[in-house]
Amino acid sequence: MAAHHFSPTVLHNSIGSHAAVLTIASGDTVTAETADAHGFDHRGIRIGDRPNPMTGPFFVAGAEPGDALLVTIRDIRMTRNTGWTYDVLSPGVVDPPAVQRFPARRKTEWLIDAGAGHARLAEPPVQLARWSVAVEPMIGCFGVAPELGQAISTATSGRYGGNMDYRGFKAGVEVMFPVSVPGALFFLGDVHAQQADGEIVGTGIETAAEVTFSVRVLKGTRIGWPRGMNEHEIFTIGNARPLDQALQHATTEMHDWLMADYGLDAVAASHVMGQAVRYDVANVFNPAYSVVCRVAKDALSGLR
Amino acid sequence: MAAHHFSPTVLHNSIGSHAAVLTIASGDTVTAETADAHGFDHRGIRIGDRPNPMTGPFFVAGAEPGDALLVTIRDIRMTRNTGWTYDVLSPGVVDPPAVQRFPARRKTEWLIDAGAGHARLAEPPVQLARWSVAVEPMIGCFGVAPELGQAISTATSGRYGGNMDYRGFKAGVEVMFPVSVPGALFFLGDVHAQQADGEIVGTGIETAAEVTFSVRVLKGTRIGWPRGMNEHEIFTIGNARPLDQALQHATTEMHDWLMADYGLDAVAASHVMGQAVRYDVANVFNPAYSVVCRVAKDALSGLR
Amino acid sequence: MAAHHFSPTVLHNSIGSHAAVLTIASGDTVTAETADAHGFDHRGIRIGDRPNPMTGPFFVAGAEPGDALLVTIRDIRMTRNTGWTYDVLSPGVVDPPAVQRFPARRKTEWLIDAGAGHARLAEPPVQLARWSVAVEPMIGCFGVAPELGQAISTATSGRYGGNMDYRGFKAGVEVMFPVSVPGALFFLGDVHAQQADGEIVGTGIETAAEVTFSVRVLKGTRIGWPRGMNEHEIFTIGNARPLDQALQHATTEMHDWLMADYGLDAVAASHVMGQAVRYDVANVFNPAYSVVCRVAKDALSGLR
Amino acid sequence: MAAHHFSPTVLHNSIGSHAAVLTIASGDTVTAETADAHGFDHRGIRIGDRPNPMTGPFFVAGAEPGDALLVTIRDIRMTRNTGWTYDVLSPGVVDPPAVQRFPARRKTEWLIDAGAGHARLAEPPVQLARWSVAVEPMIGCFGVAPELGQAISTATSGRYGGNMDYRGFKAGVEVMFPVSVPGALFFLGDVHAQQADGEIVGTGIETAAEVTFSVRVLKGTRIGWPRGMNEHEIFTIGNARPLDQALQHATTEMHDWLMADYGLDAVAASHVMGQAVRYDVANVFNPAYSVVCRVAKDALSGLR
Repeated sequence: MAAHHFSPTVLHNSIGSHAAVLTIASGDTVTAETADAHGFDHRGIRIGDRPNPMTGPFFVAGAEPGDALLVTIRDIRMTRNTGWTYDVLSPGVVDPPAVQRFPARRKTEWLIDAGAGHARLAEPPVQLARWSVAVEPMIGCFGVAPELGQAISTATSGRYGGNMDYRGFKAGVEVMFPVSVPGALFFLGDVHAQQADGEIVGTGIETAAEVTFSVRVLKGTRIGWPRGMNEHEIFTIGNARPLDQALQHATTEMHDWLMADYGLDAVAASHVMGQAVRYDVANVFNPAYSVVCRVAKDALSGLR
Repeated sequence: MAAHHFSPTVLHNSIGSHAAVLTIASGDTVTAETADAHGFDHRGIRIGDRPNPMTGPFFVAGAEPGDALLVTIRDIRMTRNTGWTYDVLSPGVVDPPAVQRFPARRKTEWLIDAGAGHARLAEPPVQLARWSVAVEPMIGCFGVAPELGQAISTATSGRYGGNMDYRGFKAGVEVMFPVSVPGALFFLGDVHAQQADGEIVGTGIETAAEVTFSVRVLKGTRIGWPRGMNEHEIFTIGNARPLDQALQHATTEMHDWLMADYGLDAVAASHVMGQAVRYDVANVFNPAYSVVCRVAKDALSGLR
Repeated sequence: MAAHHFSPTVLHNSIGSHAAVLTIASGDTVTAETADAHGFDHRGIRIGDRPNPMTGPFFVAGAEPGDALLVTIRDIRMTRNTGWTYDVLSPGVVDPPAVQRFPARRKTEWLIDAGAGHARLAEPPVQLARWSVAVEPMIGCFGVAPELGQAISTATSGRYGGNMDYRGFKAGVEVMFPVSVPGALFFLGDVHAQQADGEIVGTGIETAAEVTFSVRVLKGTRIGWPRGMNEHEIFTIGNARPLDQALQHATTEMHDWLMADYGLDAVAASHVMGQAVRYDVANVFNPAYSVVCRVAKDALSGLR
Repeated sequence: MAAHHFSPTVLHNSIGSHAAVLTIASGDTVTAETADAHGFDHRGIRIGDRPNPMTGPFFVAGAEPGDALLVTIRDIRMTRNTGWTYDVLSPGVVDPPAVQRFPARRKTEWLIDAGAGHARLAEPPVQLARWSVAVEPMIGCFGVAPELGQAISTATSGRYGGNMDYRGFKAGVEVMFPVSVPGALFFLGDVHAQQADGEIVGTGIETAAEVTFSVRVLKGTRIGWPRGMNEHEIFTIGNARPLDQALQHATTEMHDWLMADYGLDAVAASHVMGQAVRYDVANVFNPAYSVVCRVAKDALSGLR
């Protein structure tokens, strides 16, 4: 149950079987610094390259293919008082003819006041002079090394996690990843101070952070896609294009879960899901889109 | 400001330029009975055919092409203590190979206790013996006659509304439809006692109801897709396949709205949406899927 | 086996249960004039409105729901020496960021020399001064009244046919449509002098024409989507968005056909299709895209 | 202009920056043996694992990021008289409810008679007793190492090539890949004796082969996606899901090509493509689908 602190020097633009930076045990806690999506750290110094340079990988002793790695996000601390976003909707999220109404996208600076809990544009247009948003930090990109010795760009995501950009990946949440290599090889980075559904401007408020997480190896827990739990819900996440396929992955994974762990057959699990699921469009910007399928714990109480 | 009560005798399986059943004025309120998706009324008598037989159309005096019709859902009263759902996930919402895990779908009866506020399966499988869901009535299908003299099946939806199956269409909500013909010709029906996101078993809890709504003609209000307001949010809805296109429609309509009515240019509206939108997957079952784009009124306060 | 000539006066912008303009018998041949997609006839006089005004409907005596209507395209004769296209790629067929490279679309005139068999831009840009294309006339939009009393815009398509914009619908081809109403109610129009795959500029070379076709009622031939035969192939066409779903419809319909009429079971039909199908992207512009699944007659010889 | 022969001992299941097996010069020709999709060689001995084990990589001296690698497929020689396919349509290519009509897929053996030029099922169902297909060998999977140090599963494809499964990749064809790493690092394998459009049973006739190819470095030729030339056409290929996006990639790449090398502006290139493109659905089975955009050389003659 050791506690580690880790400052990265070499960051990775792919999630794969890279040399581990630290070996940790099931139960350990790590506080790790992360750079922003373009590689700038808490001092504003570039320590990595785009896209989404990752801190890690962490080798989790005892994790083997066929296990799941449970990651609990303990805290996401803002370490810089600036962030940035793009300033126009992604051309992929509007009707094709509407693409022409937007100027070329630019990086725009934000001022983050973590103490006061809000962020605002550094140089707002006049209409947004009094406009600010809440600081609700989340992890944009994290996951474990994929199968087949692959190393996959941190711009995208898959069964192994990756750049899912889901605003629900915040402090207090537990996330399970399917382990494909010995030690799991866990990476993280790309923290956002705030992001709405879909990441439709192509970014959240991108910034540097210090993330505290703990890990636990779930031996023999075979899962197909990342799963998670927060205070009130269990959820699955599917990553693919188009949204329809991402939703199919998340829905099938939830159905698998309800059948395996809640004692439901295919029909009973359908009844529960049919009247209880909620979907989130996590991101509709990255090469793989991400859709979350949630079920309230209340809807499942008394089933087992 | 008259109040009408309407009991249908002829129901329609398409939304189009059919003969009006009642002429009402802007400001009027109507309480209309609706049959369930297979045409059974509050007595369980078949008064219409599938799919989704509609009550109406109501001719709203003064409504002309280029206006919007504002419909306020005042109340949705359950008039039958039974409903029904299908019992397996739609083959379109799971990974294609998983389709084979489900038996052929069957209609399943539910018991609705509107007074107690919950519904439960009439003959539940043992795992669901103690399981029930809240009664939260919503309108599955409503809208106005489309352009070009079209008459379109109530199984699907479009700019004119239709079978959107959004759980957010409940009492207290205001919805705007783009008017394409004189009198707008408003139809409604297909009430559900409960439905989760996506309508992923192909139904909500389908039942008969009595819907009280009022109408108002918004002269010269040109909109592209249905829009709505509830207590805390404004929202738009896009209807198309795949989900990506439905989302594009809803997102573009919201961007249009923020630019036209909130004084924002294309960039400022992008900033607000990028950090504030929420998406709902209303239905991912019908020929046209429906995606809702929501923005909290709080996020818009102080912009105008 | 009568031969009719028909000149339209009232044209329709929807395919539906409109009043028949002529009753014909199974076996009859009709030569019908068609206006271009914006309603201009062979004289350049506007006799209809956009979109795609239809000639018809023709009531085919004896056709009933559950039958198929076999339409043989005998001849498509150019009746005007001008046509028009749009001049830029549709925003939906390029990568979203590339939309911004195109100016606003304009109608562009073409000169059609049917005798010489080629067409060219009336005022070509210098790079295209010597460029011309072959005249290969095809029917853009045709079909029969859909089910449920629907009337559906001629901009789109479905099981009943409609605006499929397939370059393979040319003289010599036989097409089957599923009959949904007594008399079938057959419409046609929107002839193109030339069009490539996908209709990616949003038009073929739109022009007026005189189409000669004959009809035959296939009693009790239940089909799900339009089917066709040309000299060397049989084919099916699926109409939907996205392309994936249009392809699924066409593929399933071909599989149904091989099982029903060629004596193959599900596996044998898969073997044949797996090594023999060809797909055409008929249109990737209209509200419903169209994908064609073709199988060479040679691949099927000796199977029955 | 050396000629090499290469027999693999270690095969790769990902395309990435693996150690080169041979360094070759621009202009060289290589004859390389390839195993089938499950790793069996010409003797039927397993020398690699699924998916699609690759021969290579070949380091092409002088190739640098920003260049293109031109690969000419000189010959594809069958080295085994057996192959295999799956026996049912992929669940992703039929309407979701139709998935249930198929039994679980099985590997099925084929007998390949390269001399006679045809292949047939080893144990055909009775309806297919006299049925055979032509032997038309093609390369299923080939490409160059992708950017960012990635190593990507040979089940899928991208800008770098990969598992495109296009029946047009046959002897006589030239293919260009965008170079992302020094030496390009070219891989190949997964030869099919025959395959129709779409690879809709999930395989071609998978077999071992000996591929003879030559390479040429095109310095400073920046391309976005693979491009190719055959006797009569130029073509581009886009790899993504859904088909719509694959088509967008291929269409945009062709438009880029016509503008850069044929002297056309955005409008002129649109005119040519609008009346001349042909699309092929190369595969609609793999994680990334592949769509080919072709233009006849005849349509381009006289433009420059």
